[in-house]
Amino acid sequence: MPGLAGRPGSWGGLLLRVGQTFFAAACIGVMGSSLGFSSYTAFCYLVASMGLQMLWSFGLACLDAYAIKVKKDLTHPIMLSLFVVGDWVTAILSFAASSSAGGVVILFQKDVLFCRRYPQLPCGKYELATAFAFLSWALSATSALIAFWLLAAF
Amino acid sequence: MPGLAGRPGSWGGLLLRVGQTFFAAACIGVMGSSLGFSSYTAFCYLVASMGLQMLWSFGLACLDAYAIKVKKDLTHPIMLSLFVVGDWVTAILSFAASSSAGGVVILFQKDVLFCRRYPQLPCGKYELATAFAFLSWALSATSALIAFWLLAAF
Repeated sequence: MPGLAGRPGSWGGLLLRVGQTFFAAACIGVMGSSLGFSSYTAFCYLVASMGLQMLWSFGLACLDAYAIKVKKDLTHPIMLSLFVVGDWVTAILSFAASSSAGGVVILFQKDVLFCRRYPQLPCGKYELATAFAFLSWALSATSALIAFWLLAAF
Repeated sequence: MPGLAGRPGSWGGLLLRVGQTFFAAACIGVMGSSLGFSSYTAFCYLVASMGLQMLWSFGLACLDAYAIKVKKDLTHPIMLSLFVVGDWVTAILSFAASSSAGGVVILFQKDVLFCRRYPQLPCGKYELATAFAFLSWALSATSALIAFWLLAAF
């Protein structure tokens, strides 16, 4: 299936990588600028996981751009295995981080009412950062599925 | 790849389904017997998601047992597509639920120190239920990967 949209080394693949990098960077920016996030393990883990996602996606975006420029095919089984392992690890870490941050944000807002009791807590920013992390994860999962599908179809 | 261990309709597949059902039931049992879990959205979501996981896995365990008994092959593309969709949906829901419950448990224990401040909170049970949910998810993800791999290899 060499014509699959979003495969490594295509414009679709590059677009997915750029999106992942952008949303991961946006998550880190918003979370990093919000007061007191480092007191909460889930938010620290979110920043760490999005940092890894950003590095990985940026590296692969550069590789995709290079492959498009020199018209190189990146869908070898060995390259695909590498992408599959990296993508799955980052996607699983990102999803775990986004879900646990989401769980904590909902706890703060609905269950223990920290957002109402402590108005200095930037709950809106926590929410926004979690939403960006979910978007980055969704794109990363798409890349991971495409790479896995291509590898299995070889 | 009809000889892949853990494929639908084999002893390995049946074992995976029984494991998923068992750990999901254990999670519901432990969480349901712990005081005040319903005050926390993440724990309610965990119980709901494990309920779905248990129903799905139990149904497929019965199907696997039937297929083994009558020596029926369940690896048709149409059946596999159904397994892939169901497995991925339940695995993603289970992972999101376990991660958000894990995030809340760590928050209670390390960040806001609720477990130390409110000794009536059954933190040990919350932890155990989350661990069972992670085990159920790990087996469910294995089934989902095997079904996806078989479908892609058709």
